[in-house]
Amino acid sequence: MERVFIIGTGLIGASTGLALRGAGFAGRIDGWDASQLEMGAAVQMGAIDGRAGSREDALDLARLANVIVLAVPVLAIKDWMRLLAPVLQPGQLITDVGSTKLEIVDLAEQLFSNDKKASFLPGHPMAGKESGGALLAEARLFDGAMWLFTPTSSEMTPMEKQWRGWVGCFGSRTLDMDAAKHDELCAWVSHLPQMLSTALSALLEERFGDAPEIAAIGGRALKETTRLGASPYSMWRDVALTNTGPIADTLLGLEQRLQHVRENLRTPELREEFALANKFRQRR
Amino acid sequence: MERVFIIGTGLIGASTGLALRGAGFAGRIDGWDASQLEMGAAVQMGAIDGRAGSREDALDLARLANVIVLAVPVLAIKDWMRLLAPVLQPGQLITDVGSTKLEIVDLAEQLFSNDKKASFLPGHPMAGKESGGALLAEARLFDGAMWLFTPTSSEMTPMEKQWRGWVGCFGSRTLDMDAAKHDELCAWVSHLPQMLSTALSALLEERFGDAPEIAAIGGRALKETTRLGASPYSMWRDVALTNTGPIADTLLGLEQRLQHVRENLRTPELREEFALANKFRQRR
Repeated sequence: MERVFIIGTGLIGASTGLALRGAGFAGRIDGWDASQLEMGAAVQMGAIDGRAGSREDALDLARLANVIVLAVPVLAIKDWMRLLAPVLQPGQLITDVGSTKLEIVDLAEQLFSNDKKASFLPGHPMAGKESGGALLAEARLFDGAMWLFTPTSSEMTPMEKQWRGWVGCFGSRTLDMDAAKHDELCAWVSHLPQMLSTALSALLEERFGDAPEIAAIGGRALKETTRLGASPYSMWRDVALTNTGPIADTLLGLEQRLQHVRENLRTPELREEFALANKFRQRR
Repeated sequence: MERVFIIGTGLIGASTGLALRGAGFAGRIDGWDASQLEMGAAVQMGAIDGRAGSREDALDLARLANVIVLAVPVLAIKDWMRLLAPVLQPGQLITDVGSTKLEIVDLAEQLFSNDKKASFLPGHPMAGKESGGALLAEARLFDGAMWLFTPTSSEMTPMEKQWRGWVGCFGSRTLDMDAAKHDELCAWVSHLPQMLSTALSALLEERFGDAPEIAAIGGRALKETTRLGASPYSMWRDVALTNTGPIADTLLGLEQRLQHVRENLRTPELREEFALANKFRQRR
């Protein structure tokens, strides 16, 4: 692996560039972002060496790279997959960092499951922040985090092996799983907490607006449960669109559970609920 | 203020003793806890100098104290108020740290609004941890936190002035508010996040039990939204019993909001929800 091209130089894309450098990658890293601001910041931070001048230029740089990292929201990942499939060659690897995997895997099987095509490795680092952007990127963002893969083929190309090696050098643990399983589990551990935090923050905003009371008395419990309220719609729209069923299932499950708690605030059933919750936390 | 008696030497009670010492209080601090273990730990940590040998002994030590701090769950606070009212004298101050205030204020007005009685100052430090117990107590637990009061009388006794002074020395900000308002606001910023975290943890426990997947891939979002799942029923039972209406209102509000999100995962309405949530977080 001598050349990497990162499409989308926001938080995750720029952190990937910095993590490569931090792990000793000595090759060239180019990047492209629809936002000149993000791309400029990524260059300044040393996350990428050079930037594409346009979308067409990006396709040319992709042709020269051994590994192309798609670090944009999920629907944009799918757009880039369609653009890249005709222009890349066998031996090249495309990998992505999208939060949902089933639609990406389905498209990859259509576009890249052919000996005359580049190979595609669907990936998902379980790392991030409530706010995005290259300026928040860190070389150590993935250190200690889980980096999931949902491979479409049981065979590994040499470039895929190399990429997995670099991910290990970032300090990430890796795990391969089925894409449908991935999307269902991520609905529980990531998408539900996000939607919950957004819903609670929106509810409080509507209820209290700029009244000073909430800020005055809210402590750590409020801060933690609303932290993800700051997350950008631009990314989560695509998650909601590409994992609608599993997310709706988790939301319905939580609605029913909250109703159960509400109806049992004065009954011994509440003790059972706390006992189950205590048990869950003790395992962690 | 020369003698303080702390009833309930768990996390908050023992931290109050340590905070007094940390702020330079040179008088005597005695304590009582129904658990010999908690009381022993509080002595060992230097949170209290001496311990009552029995409940009766506790009443005797209360008679000798200038300030009696009730740091037990809310229903137990009410029990101690009834026990203490007949044996204390004018000039003495009882204060509490209970999480709900309306029932305590109502009882205080019955028991202590009389010149021949001790005075009562209802209080609530907005500080804590998901796990209780004297061993987790810290002198600085209240530093930077809000310590709310819901006074029953507009006049301050000299001992109340002194107590408020010590709370300021702990590093707490203080704010006086109406008890009903307190209970409503705390339902939003504290009780709802707790019930939510308990419900989500219980749901995940029932769904996944000891399957390793959740632990393997869950990140900060899951950790934060389930942290309070570790909280003890013993304390929250009393909160639920003494603030049922306001908590039920907040739960119903969140259920409806989650349903709204669920029904709009694929519509532009989701953008509005994220915009409101972003606005809430930007204020903080």
